[in-house]
Amino acid sequence: MSLTDVIEGTRTAVDADPRNAAVQFSVAHTLTPGTATVVEVNVRDHSFTVDEPAALGGTDTAANPVEFALAALGSCQVITYQFWAAKLGVPLEGIKVVVDGDLDLHGFFGFSANTRPGFSEVRVSVELTGPAGAERYEELKRQVDEHCPVLDLFRNETPVKSSLG
Amino acid sequence: MSLTDVIEGTRTAVDADPRNAAVQFSVAHTLTPGTATVVEVNVRDHSFTVDEPAALGGTDTAANPVEFALAALGSCQVITYQFWAAKLGVPLEGIKVVVDGDLDLHGFFGFSANTRPGFSEVRVSVELTGPAGAERYEELKRQVDEHCPVLDLFRNETPVKSSLG
Repeated sequence: MSLTDVIEGTRTAVDADPRNAAVQFSVAHTLTPGTATVVEVNVRDHSFTVDEPAALGGTDTAANPVEFALAALGSCQVITYQFWAAKLGVPLEGIKVVVDGDLDLHGFFGFSANTRPGFSEVRVSVELTGPAGAERYEELKRQVDEHCPVLDLFRNETPVKSSLG
Repeated sequence: MSLTDVIEGTRTAVDADPRNAAVQFSVAHTLTPGTATVVEVNVRDHSFTVDEPAALGGTDTAANPVEFALAALGSCQVITYQFWAAKLGVPLEGIKVVVDGDLDLHGFFGFSANTRPGFSEVRVSVELTGPAGAERYEELKRQVDEHCPVLDLFRNETPVKSSLG
């Protein structure tokens, strides 16, 4: 099914009942017994590992949580470019996205109460290839940045409820 | 190296020069040619795939970007529990974390200007096993939630700069 078909199919389903647009995602995480930082992740039928590099006490079998957060943003940008290029009819032949994030470990380790534990700044560099003019790609970028779910998560506050069972 | 050693080693390095706490992470993403939604991700020596389920136009070879965002949060919670349990001397034998997120697709598809594209709400359920009393685990949770980098990313605004090259 093409992305245009997905957009039209979703439009029809959501027009029939707006509740069809409400989706829920669920992800399970377990510390691998006997390790300090190896986390097994399960999402639907998919599973993968998260770890830390040696300098952060891990065994470096996989990327670490903040790198996965940047990867969520970069991959969401790529896919949102694909959807919005289809929606706007902008021809696109290739996409590369590099995401860099700065973090001050004073926050995570609790060495300074004034330093936030998360990223102080994130930079997204997008490279598009295709036959359209620069103006059309700039307009595409504006629409993508307005509608990218993970960019919204980064840029704005999200309500999080947390419980200890 | 134990997590306590990592904490002490980082403390020494950061006391010697606070700039030692400044770390940068970088992640590269490329759309796999000929696919609509398959993204190849490269982080240091690690690589993995991000895709969409069929209902969102993909081939479901992997979890999707918003699921990776939830996985970043859940795995960061697990590892921050490990570090802060070591730092506070709280005995901990097992950790499981489930993260659920609600999203309204009106935002992503641009069907409604009033709906944010990202999560409207995220819920984190933590299950700890170990011999300490409930009060110590509640205190541990307070410290974790104050120092978890990806929880900070979710709960607060992060400055993001974006450029089209």
